[in-house]
Amino acid sequence: MTIASRQLANAIRALAMDAVQAANSGHPGMPMGMADVATELFTKHLKYDPAQPRWADRDRFVLSAGHGSMLIYALLHLTGYARPTIEDIRNFRQLHSPCAGHPENFELAGVEATTGPLGSGLATAVGMAIAERHLNASFGTDLVDHHTWVIAGDGCLMEGINHEAIGLAGHLKLGRLIVLWDDNRITIDGAVSLSSSEDVLARYAATGWHTVSCDGHDPDSINTALEAAKADPRPSIVQCTTVIGYGAPNKQGTSATHGAALGVDEVAAARGYLGWTAEPFVIPEDIKAAWAEAGHRGTATRSAWEARLVASKDRAEFERRMAGALPAGFSLDAYIKELAANPQKVATRKASEMALGPINEQLPETVGGSADLTGSNNTKTKGQAPLTAEDYAGRYIYYGIREFGMGCAMNGLALHGGVIPYGGTFMVFSDYCRPAIRLSALQQQRVVYVMTHDSIGLGEDGPTHQPVEHLMSLRAMPNLDVYRPCDAIETAECWQLALEKADGPSLLALSREGLPQVRTDISENFSAKGAYRLKAAEATRKVVLIASGSEVEIALATAKKLEEAGHGADVVSMPSWERFDAQPESYRDAILPEGVLLVSIEAGTTMGWERYVGRKGLRFGVDGFGASAPVKALYDHFGLTADKLAPRIIGALAN
Amino acid sequence: MTIASRQLANAIRALAMDAVQAANSGHPGMPMGMADVATELFTKHLKYDPAQPRWADRDRFVLSAGHGSMLIYALLHLTGYARPTIEDIRNFRQLHSPCAGHPENFELAGVEATTGPLGSGLATAVGMAIAERHLNASFGTDLVDHHTWVIAGDGCLMEGINHEAIGLAGHLKLGRLIVLWDDNRITIDGAVSLSSSEDVLARYAATGWHTVSCDGHDPDSINTALEAAKADPRPSIVQCTTVIGYGAPNKQGTSATHGAALGVDEVAAARGYLGWTAEPFVIPEDIKAAWAEAGHRGTATRSAWEARLVASKDRAEFERRMAGALPAGFSLDAYIKELAANPQKVATRKASEMALGPINEQLPETVGGSADLTGSNNTKTKGQAPLTAEDYAGRYIYYGIREFGMGCAMNGLALHGGVIPYGGTFMVFSDYCRPAIRLSALQQQRVVYVMTHDSIGLGEDGPTHQPVEHLMSLRAMPNLDVYRPCDAIETAECWQLALEKADGPSLLALSREGLPQVRTDISENFSAKGAYRLKAAEATRKVVLIASGSEVEIALATAKKLEEAGHGADVVSMPSWERFDAQPESYRDAILPEGVLLVSIEAGTTMGWERYVGRKGLRFGVDGFGASAPVKALYDHFGLTADKLAPRIIGALAN
Repeated sequence: MTIASRQLANAIRALAMDAVQAANSGHPGMPMGMADVATELFTKHLKYDPAQPRWADRDRFVLSAGHGSMLIYALLHLTGYARPTIEDIRNFRQLHSPCAGHPENFELAGVEATTGPLGSGLATAVGMAIAERHLNASFGTDLVDHHTWVIAGDGCLMEGINHEAIGLAGHLKLGRLIVLWDDNRITIDGAVSLSSSEDVLARYAATGWHTVSCDGHDPDSINTALEAAKADPRPSIVQCTTVIGYGAPNKQGTSATHGAALGVDEVAAARGYLGWTAEPFVIPEDIKAAWAEAGHRGTATRSAWEARLVASKDRAEFERRMAGALPAGFSLDAYIKELAANPQKVATRKASEMALGPINEQLPETVGGSADLTGSNNTKTKGQAPLTAEDYAGRYIYYGIREFGMGCAMNGLALHGGVIPYGGTFMVFSDYCRPAIRLSALQQQRVVYVMTHDSIGLGEDGPTHQPVEHLMSLRAMPNLDVYRPCDAIETAECWQLALEKADGPSLLALSREGLPQVRTDISENFSAKGAYRLKAAEATRKVVLIASGSEVEIALATAKKLEEAGHGADVVSMPSWERFDAQPESYRDAILPEGVLLVSIEAGTTMGWERYVGRKGLRFGVDGFGASAPVKALYDHFGLTADKLAPRIIGALAN
Repeated sequence: MTIASRQLANAIRALAMDAVQAANSGHPGMPMGMADVATELFTKHLKYDPAQPRWADRDRFVLSAGHGSMLIYALLHLTGYARPTIEDIRNFRQLHSPCAGHPENFELAGVEATTGPLGSGLATAVGMAIAERHLNASFGTDLVDHHTWVIAGDGCLMEGINHEAIGLAGHLKLGRLIVLWDDNRITIDGAVSLSSSEDVLARYAATGWHTVSCDGHDPDSINTALEAAKADPRPSIVQCTTVIGYGAPNKQGTSATHGAALGVDEVAAARGYLGWTAEPFVIPEDIKAAWAEAGHRGTATRSAWEARLVASKDRAEFERRMAGALPAGFSLDAYIKELAANPQKVATRKASEMALGPINEQLPETVGGSADLTGSNNTKTKGQAPLTAEDYAGRYIYYGIREFGMGCAMNGLALHGGVIPYGGTFMVFSDYCRPAIRLSALQQQRVVYVMTHDSIGLGEDGPTHQPVEHLMSLRAMPNLDVYRPCDAIETAECWQLALEKADGPSLLALSREGLPQVRTDISENFSAKGAYRLKAAEATRKVVLIASGSEVEIALATAKKLEEAGHGADVVSMPSWERFDAQPESYRDAILPEGVLLVSIEAGTTMGWERYVGRKGLRFGVDGFGASAPVKALYDHFGLTADKLAPRIIGALAN
């Protein structure tokens, strides 16, 4: 390669400033500032092959500072990925362009993670790095042996998720994780010193990280630092001292380059400053060729790896796992039959643990965990050894008190491939990891959230621990399947559905308190329909009671009282809104017919239940905060008992 | 005091283990482990007066490790607060007892913050410490001169919020903030070393904190450390090495003491171990007297302070501000009149900045800020100087990229009193600070969240930045008023309502894009009704279009097309669900009558709008994730234009 690194980097700068200028929207500062570092990484260190972007043993690269999306679009284009084309880049930030405002994993191969919400990319990378070590332990260095690289900005480092992510990474000694910190000393509001005074490297060192610094515009300095990072057994942070918007002579080094087009004049001035004479979106042939050559660096390595894979006894299993296919014959039917034969009263969190027995036995790809609530979330099954720095083959992660970190790590585990992650916390703390849940959904990843203690039914811990609005808030999230099973059989069914959904996350809302087994018919997975008639009216049907989870038992008891009073009442168990809404109208109308009183019973906010009971239906639930008391006292206090509900329903029927 | 510190501490231990045992629920380990530290704090260092628990210049004490609630209940009882009584403590965790599972600020004077969600208490204390310095700068040391103390556990320190909180505190050099870290090396899952390897003190030092250690069971060691903490100009963390469940001979030092009653036998064994012979819930007279004496330590100091207040020229203003009363005559009427006279097209985020002009001028108690999006959130008004370590009198906080930290700090500012905090971020990042918003609501605090870029209308930044489910998710939260104004006049009205709500938070969802001024009638604050008829049908009314925020403009354009086609259409602007639901039924029925087609138009999830349009109404919105494109292209793509909506509505009318 005879082209100087700086010229290669200037190709990135030119594409970044031109694309942002054309869109009149975007963030040129970061790509221009980190162009030199990224150039060294992609031309000398990163293991990848644009011709086979899904190569399982490629290094993973995550642009945690996702606003600098033009950096990765430029890199993928220049190194020879099929997309983005130069046309895609010209259409940066336009409808249907894969070059979206922030990098989206579902738009472009080579974009390993959707980033933009600050800090979450770095935390996702931690999950990828865990997956790498875990699969290395399972399949050996011949098949799995790669690094995970991150570019992160000051925003990523200031966010709380940063603390959770690096704490986990340091503890697990993820030496193949390398964070390149774009230390440009600028945030949107101005200098970093406006809002922060910390010694970042000292903080990382305190958390078990290796730290090293470089001049982010000096290739030798960069390469020395990157080599040191690769050599150290600890996870590494590389402080790259850079100038934001490097090359824009009148604006570089200021927040003016961060989030807006430079302007025609400044783009022209930058061309002069950088000695870049090519037209917008044109890369000179020699520079193009040098980048293409860099893009072929991995070909031989990838071929050799493929030969090893072909020769491996583990090939079929490795390919199955990386493809995310469940093993043929995976089934919970035998377990469910056993349940039906031996009905028992258990909390659904316990039922989840029971279901995880056969699941973890049949699926070697599951990696469970909890944010320090293992015994409460019932997420660990017998035989699951902890995944530790000493034994990455373990299949259970003690995530610590890091709900958001756990969620992001699970996203990384899923994005890496070869692993199906699940993890638990209390339902109320879904708020703590909500941004991670949203990223699971947006990134279309199979992550299973095990959220226990799912209502006032948790009792004495009181309002800080009692979810009220959470169920509804999570149902509102696109592409997330929320399940609230009512007994052990539904819990198993919901687990089955969650595992079978390869293109999105699921969330199980589970009870702390014991629930009777109310399902007897196991002829099919009724939870798959989202809602179904659990009990048909005996007298002429006047009421349909719709309930989920722990309130199904109460609905059944209420129906009994209604029948005793001569009012026929169906009971519909509705474990999943999303699945019910996906049923044909005829089915939905049959379950929730017109001309009867529709009643919802759920120990959470009633806002939203109008969807099924209409403006005139009755909605029973909890619309304020909970309270601290034993569970029975709380259900009585909030009026959610058959004794209190039946008269109100009968009263409504009389009107 | 002739009673040894250890005996005083044992009174706490006895109450904690007895109360948890009686409830058969709770967390004895932390109160027993930290009893010695808490005893030294409450008998020698903390400035307070149980007879005047709302004394404005008291030290603030926050039990961030809120599960150890029996610690504070015991302390408040023993030092002589009116509540909790011993009867209250006997009813620990029972319905209507103020001794709830976790400490609730609205249950007991002396509980300064609701805690339990880990880390948030510490972050709230940061806000209290900011308030103290700010008011000190405004009113002088005679009136404001106190410390903020925190007890935090490993959970608080592992949570991401810890990083944000201590980063802010270190940066602002909050030397009067002292965190007592209960270093018991135990979490729920077992040893801290299962999930964390960090050097906590080194991390705090890296963030600008003073660090000191003590033996948490040795009074001299504790007092030496606390004195050092008070003497240092930086915020301090005191590592208190303790044994969790100290005194329970067979369980101490293990997670078995954390979250469950010790059991009758172990309680008996602990009595023996501690030499505590009194019956459950009985405190020996000499120990009771010694505690009562400690509770009187602050009387003289408080009296002297009151004398200074009485003599102060600032007394009236100080009392007004601490009482949270707005100044007599506070009004935005003149500003709104001006708006009405000069209609303009502005983004509601800009309208919010405009409203903040007269607000910040009239209300010296507002303290604004943004999580590093000042220019985007439009939260800073001219003349607002930054609040910095060099000038605590400033009224604008550069919170940095710390949304959750900002939310908690605002809660602390509000809980301290004397300040009305508001702060901004992008609406989509309401997810990042959602646990803080929930705590604003639960704690009934006047905090105003300024959430801009409130829909796909933000355009090119794409799905990671476009809120979809957020509005609905926030509406589901109890005691939070969510406002989505449609123009500059509604924005001012909503600000007025937010400021007038002294007992809860408000959230303003504001547009990035310019919106025309559609309100002409300023005879009253129509936003106060939550929804109102903005435009009445001209032809016979067949349709009512309900919209909020940026979609009101679209609803008006759609109505025009409907009228042109002969279909009379009302347009209802609905800035606030909560306020509309609070109107009399007659008003609600008049606005949303039966027998017409009800249609909702809002650029967010349509789930939930059945509340107003019923099961058969039309709901237009965005039910999947957004996309990256210019705003006009997006509204067209998602079908939210008059051209696309009108035919669909006309089609529905024909059916």
